[in-house]
Amino acid sequence: MVIDPSTLTRQQVYKLLVGSVVPRPIAWVSTVSIDGGCNLAPFSFFTVVSTQPPMLSITLERRLGNDEWKDTLQNAQSTGGFVVNVVSLSLAQAMEESSVEHPPEIDEFVIAEVTAAPSCVVRAPRVAEALINIECELESVIAPGSDHVVIGRMVRYHVRDDLISHGRIDIDKLQAVGRLAGRYTRVSEIFSLTPRSDLRVED
Amino acid sequence: MVIDPSTLTRQQVYKLLVGSVVPRPIAWVSTVSIDGGCNLAPFSFFTVVSTQPPMLSITLERRLGNDEWKDTLQNAQSTGGFVVNVVSLSLAQAMEESSVEHPPEIDEFVIAEVTAAPSCVVRAPRVAEALINIECELESVIAPGSDHVVIGRMVRYHVRDDLISHGRIDIDKLQAVGRLAGRYTRVSEIFSLTPRSDLRVED
Repeated sequence: MVIDPSTLTRQQVYKLLVGSVVPRPIAWVSTVSIDGGCNLAPFSFFTVVSTQPPMLSITLERRLGNDEWKDTLQNAQSTGGFVVNVVSLSLAQAMEESSVEHPPEIDEFVIAEVTAAPSCVVRAPRVAEALINIECELESVIAPGSDHVVIGRMVRYHVRDDLISHGRIDIDKLQAVGRLAGRYTRVSEIFSLTPRSDLRVED
Repeated sequence: MVIDPSTLTRQQVYKLLVGSVVPRPIAWVSTVSIDGGCNLAPFSFFTVVSTQPPMLSITLERRLGNDEWKDTLQNAQSTGGFVVNVVSLSLAQAMEESSVEHPPEIDEFVIAEVTAAPSCVVRAPRVAEALINIECELESVIAPGSDHVVIGRMVRYHVRDDLISHGRIDIDKLQAVGRLAGRYTRVSEIFSLTPRSDLRVED
């Protein structure tokens, strides 16, 4: 079947995208408003856009009835930063609670029953229970199409001591959760591949 | 442990990023040069950056000894397009073969033993064996930091007929492979979550 996306509604296109770009990492983003109100929301159009300096991008969709992005974007712009918290399996339900639509005055740290810990550089708090927190300063916001893409530069990296060894993250211990279309996946059936003729240049 | 990334080498930062932004979807990108030479390479810094019109971004890292990105970028720029092929478990080894460093004159479709099928709109061929192919026209290339971020606009979406039902992709049948740090994960242990008090607005 061949589909011309220009013949589809936005919602129809969205269904194809979330079912095809899988599995997706989850950025559980914490921000704070200039008034000190905390916000926490998950986003899964999330990736690395630079390694030197390290930068992450998060797409904030503008969808009917979904205004999570508004608080996140406004807070990141007004305070100049945000924190990406990594969602391990033990935090999945808390993350899900924070995905529910709330008015700006609601603190999703309370809703999700997680602890706001101070960050080192940015004003936004970290989720203390997350095994990894990435403090980001806002680098830029672009809008290639309908949505905002927030680009942040990593300024501090927090990791639980027992999760890192020789500079590598213990993926099995992290138990990250991936996003699918409406559902989630565990990272549990892990495997390695080796090219038949490995001419790869190690760096 | 708190790490200031400005005190790390690029390789050290890279290890933290690929271990933290997990699991990652894989864009197995096919392109063609103006001379007709085909190229195929996997990239896992890949996400959605717009839903209307639908746009995808792929970060092409500039790493020492890794010039895959060069062919992909040059081909996408000279012919104006590329195809994102989705990697199901049955294609994982073929994808791995195409990740090995080859000179530009080598056709990774041959190395990976997959079939180049013509696309509808773009000049780049599709991987016939992939269950989903997304034809993209090149929208823009940005460089927020050290790497190129290629943004493509989806112009055709190919899906095997039995994989789509009521506009939704059958994730269980797709068996997409996710990228970790050096290893891969299956999408097999799938679960759903429901907020305790679901105030979510359906759209």
